[in-house]
Amino acid sequence: MEVSSTIAEFRRTREKLVGSVGFVPTMGYLHEGHLSLVRQARRENDRIVVSIFVNPAQFGPQEDFAQYPRDTKQDLNLLEKEGADVVFMPLVKDMYPTHFSTWVDVEGVAARLEGAVRPGHFRGVATVVAKLFNIVKPYRAYFGQKDAQQAVVIRRMVSDLNMDLKVLVAPTVRELNGLAMSSRNIYLSSTERQSATILWRSLCLAKQLWERGEQDAEHLRVEMTKLIQKERLAHIDYISIAEPETLEELAKIEGSALVSLAVRIGKTRLIDNILLEES
Amino acid sequence: MEVSSTIAEFRRTREKLVGSVGFVPTMGYLHEGHLSLVRQARRENDRIVVSIFVNPAQFGPQEDFAQYPRDTKQDLNLLEKEGADVVFMPLVKDMYPTHFSTWVDVEGVAARLEGAVRPGHFRGVATVVAKLFNIVKPYRAYFGQKDAQQAVVIRRMVSDLNMDLKVLVAPTVRELNGLAMSSRNIYLSSTERQSATILWRSLCLAKQLWERGEQDAEHLRVEMTKLIQKERLAHIDYISIAEPETLEELAKIEGSALVSLAVRIGKTRLIDNILLEES
Repeated sequence: MEVSSTIAEFRRTREKLVGSVGFVPTMGYLHEGHLSLVRQARRENDRIVVSIFVNPAQFGPQEDFAQYPRDTKQDLNLLEKEGADVVFMPLVKDMYPTHFSTWVDVEGVAARLEGAVRPGHFRGVATVVAKLFNIVKPYRAYFGQKDAQQAVVIRRMVSDLNMDLKVLVAPTVRELNGLAMSSRNIYLSSTERQSATILWRSLCLAKQLWERGEQDAEHLRVEMTKLIQKERLAHIDYISIAEPETLEELAKIEGSALVSLAVRIGKTRLIDNILLEES
Repeated sequence: MEVSSTIAEFRRTREKLVGSVGFVPTMGYLHEGHLSLVRQARRENDRIVVSIFVNPAQFGPQEDFAQYPRDTKQDLNLLEKEGADVVFMPLVKDMYPTHFSTWVDVEGVAARLEGAVRPGHFRGVATVVAKLFNIVKPYRAYFGQKDAQQAVVIRRMVSDLNMDLKVLVAPTVRELNGLAMSSRNIYLSSTERQSATILWRSLCLAKQLWERGEQDAEHLRVEMTKLIQKERLAHIDYISIAEPETLEELAKIEGSALVSLAVRIGKTRLIDNILLEES
């Protein structure tokens, strides 16, 4: 496994990679969610590249960029075991040199939900992903369904800017109790970790009601809200029931719907989602 | 010479192009300025691709998108003679389908000069050029020095987004009387065409004064203004004396400087520029 810590060094390594390249961009502090993406990439491509870069551009000034958990040594051990070919871990000053001033803006889908609560977040995400795609030149790139809106934003960008690669979105990996794997779960105390299962429980409730024929989005929202409010440590940021591609809020669920939510558990903000699809 | 009129068709043609690809993006209505770029691309690459696309996204609502001159038959004849391998001329609906919503924003350099007078112009330029680069995948791309700020914006974008290609900027091609070649010159009456030489004459004056030791940018601006004001049909939009990469206005010329101006001749808005460089 090769490790490149500058763009120039990575480009030299990239030139030597023959065949299809699968790419898994990450912010490190890897968990089973990331590793499931790496394994899928491993199965579907000749070579795989994983990037580890905590991207300052996608954190707001009041957010947790400085505190975001990092453990490079463990990440490299895990990736070595999973058979990654190249790990790209650039420095911030290499990715955002002085005079950097170009941004990729995805309008519409990026303005809603997380974009409304975290202004500039998806601009930072789209920009760094565009940069990484131009550097890594993957044939396939892998993202987790956990960050559902991120996946929608990236698909939109790839399509709009005619980027020649395939975006694959893999299922959310969960703890046994349903808690979606996230690097930010490390912020949770053991009590909070138990409370945090309320996100998944409320999503399951929505799915059950929908499976029993409930199409009224507002009713699902009300029932989810009631359930979450029973959890003392939980504070709802938003609950959304939206069309899965445009992310426009639905009044009535007629085809498929993306149910997503953001909930603060103590000081930690968590997101999760479930896709309601007719099979 | 192959002509592709959809992105999908072009991509199939592109796959068959072997060796280095030189790319000349144009809005058509080709003149000697464009052809000089095509010839340079021809000399420096194995294969060359020319695009013809009048990009609606870079025209303001009050600008001349609908009136912009078009002559596809003549353009294709000229490109055939110059030995272009592929001409890519997509339709607007293929480049900007319904729900298109991703934009490339170059801040700073794009906000000045033309960007200040034409809000959104460089966003449209950067976005379409990013799209074309992703479709054409050139090794080298060619632009004219006539659109000096455009060249600065594109270099900035390519560098910031780590696009893996070389941007080359070729000298402005002029009529014998000094008028810079431009598709928009077709808008000029013969009287206006004579008046329009004032742009180049004022730039030559600035260069002469600078060569004689004048370093005060304001003094150059004043002398250029006086000369242009003698031309009855000419109205100055701006005269800029700026650092060539950042486009920040200079008070004193110590290294090199880009002298650029926009002047309306009757109803036609023209731009031109000269680079003052110590040899």
